[in-house]
Amino acid sequence: MTAEKDAKPQAHPPGSTIGILGGGQLGRMLALAAGELGLNCHIYCPAEDSPAFDVARGVTCAPYEDEDALAAFAEAVDVVTYEFENVPDKTASFLSERLAVHPNAQVLATTQDRLVEKTFLQENGFAVAPFAKVDSVEDLEAAIVKIGVPAVLKTRRFGYDGKGQTVISDTSDLAGAYAEIGNSPAILEARIDLEREVSVICARAQGGQIATFDIAENVHQNHILHTTTVPASLALGMLEEARAIGSKVAAALDYVGVLAVELFVERDGALLVNEIAPRVHNSGHWTQDGCLISQFEQHIRAVAGWPLGSAARHSNVLMTNLLGDDIHNWRQLAAEPDVRFHDYGKSEARQGRKMGHINRIFPLDTGT
Amino acid sequence: MTAEKDAKPQAHPPGSTIGILGGGQLGRMLALAAGELGLNCHIYCPAEDSPAFDVARGVTCAPYEDEDALAAFAEAVDVVTYEFENVPDKTASFLSERLAVHPNAQVLATTQDRLVEKTFLQENGFAVAPFAKVDSVEDLEAAIVKIGVPAVLKTRRFGYDGKGQTVISDTSDLAGAYAEIGNSPAILEARIDLEREVSVICARAQGGQIATFDIAENVHQNHILHTTTVPASLALGMLEEARAIGSKVAAALDYVGVLAVELFVERDGALLVNEIAPRVHNSGHWTQDGCLISQFEQHIRAVAGWPLGSAARHSNVLMTNLLGDDIHNWRQLAAEPDVRFHDYGKSEARQGRKMGHINRIFPLDTGT
Repeated sequence: MTAEKDAKPQAHPPGSTIGILGGGQLGRMLALAAGELGLNCHIYCPAEDSPAFDVARGVTCAPYEDEDALAAFAEAVDVVTYEFENVPDKTASFLSERLAVHPNAQVLATTQDRLVEKTFLQENGFAVAPFAKVDSVEDLEAAIVKIGVPAVLKTRRFGYDGKGQTVISDTSDLAGAYAEIGNSPAILEARIDLEREVSVICARAQGGQIATFDIAENVHQNHILHTTTVPASLALGMLEEARAIGSKVAAALDYVGVLAVELFVERDGALLVNEIAPRVHNSGHWTQDGCLISQFEQHIRAVAGWPLGSAARHSNVLMTNLLGDDIHNWRQLAAEPDVRFHDYGKSEARQGRKMGHINRIFPLDTGT
Repeated sequence: MTAEKDAKPQAHPPGSTIGILGGGQLGRMLALAAGELGLNCHIYCPAEDSPAFDVARGVTCAPYEDEDALAAFAEAVDVVTYEFENVPDKTASFLSERLAVHPNAQVLATTQDRLVEKTFLQENGFAVAPFAKVDSVEDLEAAIVKIGVPAVLKTRRFGYDGKGQTVISDTSDLAGAYAEIGNSPAILEARIDLEREVSVICARAQGGQIATFDIAENVHQNHILHTTTVPASLALGMLEEARAIGSKVAAALDYVGVLAVELFVERDGALLVNEIAPRVHNSGHWTQDGCLISQFEQHIRAVAGWPLGSAARHSNVLMTNLLGDDIHNWRQLAAEPDVRFHDYGKSEARQGRKMGHINRIFPLDTGT
């Protein structure tokens, strides 16, 4: 369809093209959601066999540093978003000079660095685990004195799924611990006595409208998300508190799009912010089959300047990730009643690689 | 992923490619559903601006008679299906000689011709409105004597959305009536005293497994589907009868894929088969948001040799088609709570053209 005459400058009607940096499963599911809205996607990713390429109208396979390719990409699309938080600074600023990038480049700068992120959270009044900056073994010794053990030493950048971190339980070999994470700029965080982990998936539109999905409870195995259960088994007050944290983080970042906030629930019931993911998130995959509007559609709506949809839930959901060889059970999984099977179209089922997920749905509890 | 060692010959694992003849909105929604399963699609369509092209990995834009293009298409895909029933005979047989085409070519031959279809239905014991073959004005006169008025004169082929048909209420100008439908090979059908129209959407797998969605009630405006409501307001016994008709038609056709059977409900409560659509169907669009597994996913599963999913419904649904300029209300429609907005990505909003639809969901009735 043609552009509406009364469209606001930032609103992109059906027929517009959303540029997505990153071509993994999140990009793929974003593109599929955009397709239902009559929006086109153009995927930019350096990897040739990117899953998102197969479902998008436009494709650029080039390094993130290739300014010619980026310039052509900027010409080809109406607005830019991304499916991963490690978009290089220069890529984000190059594109931001040419057209709107949502979420904004400052969000990337904040969330790419654990120290900057934790400092941002603390300065904005969110509870976080005690932390300290570590740039040397001497820093680490001082940090241990301040924070105690057990503690977790994490690289400031590029950590995910437990990579780039190590637990420190005794202090006899701090140099060894620092070497273990590559002697990189790091952060030491107190290890929390966890009751459980939950996350809040929150969408924020360009005008500030917010839609928050119900709080999800996450179980990890080997530092990789294993299951998400909705609703989370938290007291009502804590659910409300978690939702409020998501909304406040989104507002504090002047965020546009879907954001995930991972929260630690301490044994005493306190909620601590663990980390922010400035993108759709694995712990929001349940929304595909538990809600009318998924996290992927909400993100596309926000980025395209559309109104958000309702985040209401029509079913309870248990999401289970399919890693590596799990995907070879596709036939059995697809045959299970009340299960929706999702496959990311990846060609190689390497160990621990996220290959797909299943959502098992249950009727809403009628009691309260 | 790689093919399973124990895969049956006809089963196509994630990573396989489904070839789809036709690139309209049904092809687009099939491709989006395939994408969630890790399957690729290759769309074959003569029209350059086909909506399905934008969400598929492979695209062939060529006439259905182009045997070089068809041969290359057959090489590029693992199995073929179609999104419209007017696939030329020669196209279907050319492809069927090279690889599996689901539903089979005989289904096309039966459903492309109203006379053949009605005869098939009658011979298999399904109730249909009285009908007669019309190849001339003399035939029409004889048919009117047999069937009476009011009656509907329809071309045997290529009719849709009320095109190629005329109602005969008086018999003064039968030559004029026959000229009105182009003096084409035709069928005269008794006009039914309708209570309502319903449809049954039924999926049948390669092994004969059947999954039938709940019966939907349809309201047409100007011969074009306007709304579908689920559940239909029929007595339980009639709902069961309608479901059984769908299953029996699918079995009688040795059908693989999703099939729609449109039923007339007479004022006396009898169910008559109006027509069979050998494809996913507009009156099944509600399944996208009322069921865990949509008609589109069920069709892809059946064609790819996967087990069918459950056809259970988690919500009540009111589907409304968006024709022509209706689509320009996208912003208001997308903002409505409990509504999911679907846009087919068509560039030109011609009057009466199907541009999108909305599904409005409601909690399941708790009473019975």
